[in-house]
Amino acid sequence: MTEDYVAIVQLQAAYVAAVDAGDWDAWCNLFTDDCRYRLVPRENHDRGLPLATLSFESKGMLLDRAYGIRETLFHDPYYQRHVLGPPLILARDPGRIRTETSYAVFRTKLSEPTIVFNVGRYLDDIVITPAGLRFASRIAVYDSELIPNSIIYPI
Amino acid sequence: MTEDYVAIVQLQAAYVAAVDAGDWDAWCNLFTDDCRYRLVPRENHDRGLPLATLSFESKGMLLDRAYGIRETLFHDPYYQRHVLGPPLILARDPGRIRTETSYAVFRTKLSEPTIVFNVGRYLDDIVITPAGLRFASRIAVYDSELIPNSIIYPI
Amino acid sequence: MTEDYVAIVQLQAAYVAAVDAGDWDAWCNLFTDDCRYRLVPRENHDRGLPLATLSFESKGMLLDRAYGIRETLFHDPYYQRHVLGPPLILARDPGRIRTETSYAVFRTKLSEPTIVFNVGRYLDDIVITPAGLRFASRIAVYDSELIPNSIIYPI
Repeated sequence: MTEDYVAIVQLQAAYVAAVDAGDWDAWCNLFTDDCRYRLVPRENHDRGLPLATLSFESKGMLLDRAYGIRETLFHDPYYQRHVLGPPLILARDPGRIRTETSYAVFRTKLSEPTIVFNVGRYLDDIVITPAGLRFASRIAVYDSELIPNSIIYPI
Repeated sequence: MTEDYVAIVQLQAAYVAAVDAGDWDAWCNLFTDDCRYRLVPRENHDRGLPLATLSFESKGMLLDRAYGIRETLFHDPYYQRHVLGPPLILARDPGRIRTETSYAVFRTKLSEPTIVFNVGRYLDDIVITPAGLRFASRIAVYDSELIPNSIIYPI
Repeated sequence: MTEDYVAIVQLQAAYVAAVDAGDWDAWCNLFTDDCRYRLVPRENHDRGLPLATLSFESKGMLLDRAYGIRETLFHDPYYQRHVLGPPLILARDPGRIRTETSYAVFRTKLSEPTIVFNVGRYLDDIVITPAGLRFASRIAVYDSELIPNSIIYPI
């Protein structure tokens, strides 16, 4: 369990490093081919409502999003900074681990103070692959009621 | 030590999951029967002053608080989200571990932006019980000088 | 690797405990004699520009700073609270480990709400010494564009 736990924490930390650096290839590579990524308001998640702010159903869709981010001109770019709490192991099956991890994302725009952008928890299905641990499913359930302007980058 | 450290981190993460979900039964169950929970301003803690914002002296008092939270009508409910740093091991005795852990709690109210609600550090006495690790004492020493409105939920 | 990882996390947590308590001797002692500490805006770091907000080139310079902090009258003191994410291991050589760790620093002034003061990531060179792990180099690369007033304490 201990060795696994360090590997889980490294996966989580690698996600943060990739997404906050805007390294979208590295970001995509942390997911399995048939992965799922969803960004969901807490209220919808708690009530079982299907509406999601972002929803990707495969690594292909992640790559598409990554392409979109790189190729689109943004007039109002920003930095993101994720700080994660320690992952909680919810369940452990052979080859698959479910975890829950609190997060806070801070946003910094040019010449503006850093703000709390989005907080919540990641619900993850992590699988063991020949290349190491990967996200089979990542659901970011966020508390924050208001998303200032639109979300450009994944959380 | 390593195996212990993962167990300590899991206890900390289970606390966050329980309190942020408002699962007060799960929250109480992370403490020993004769536990202590205190929420104390940093200034008072540093000067040895006894005044605490919250103070519970047993699991019975925690259960009472949990009951109060569930049975009281709140006109202004909010979400909490804890993000913890890595626990620092301060001391290690047989069956008992003292740790210090930085925390930030973010609060989200309906239709309002998420704010930094309370930051500080947990000073914990963690004991090994047949059911796993439990908090014998948790003191949340907070930096934040002003608590916007009143605290409804434990930190 | 696992045992090492716990030691790395303890070093990071000890740094936070020292700096947030204002225990500048403990802070200095987490560095090697010929250490480097730099606080750099992300933009400058990304472009390879040398400008740093703080730059110390030895433990002697850290001790000097610590002396300066203790001996100077501040008319506007504040509390700092660091919350760190899990360290990512970037590279591992014999006796030396490179890590990247997200951080958020919250600032609290007397009778003011706690604010997000500075967020970013630590890029660390950690070495194994007879006294335990120490920082040979810590570079804090911060996203935050504006530093409200001046930085008194190290990040």
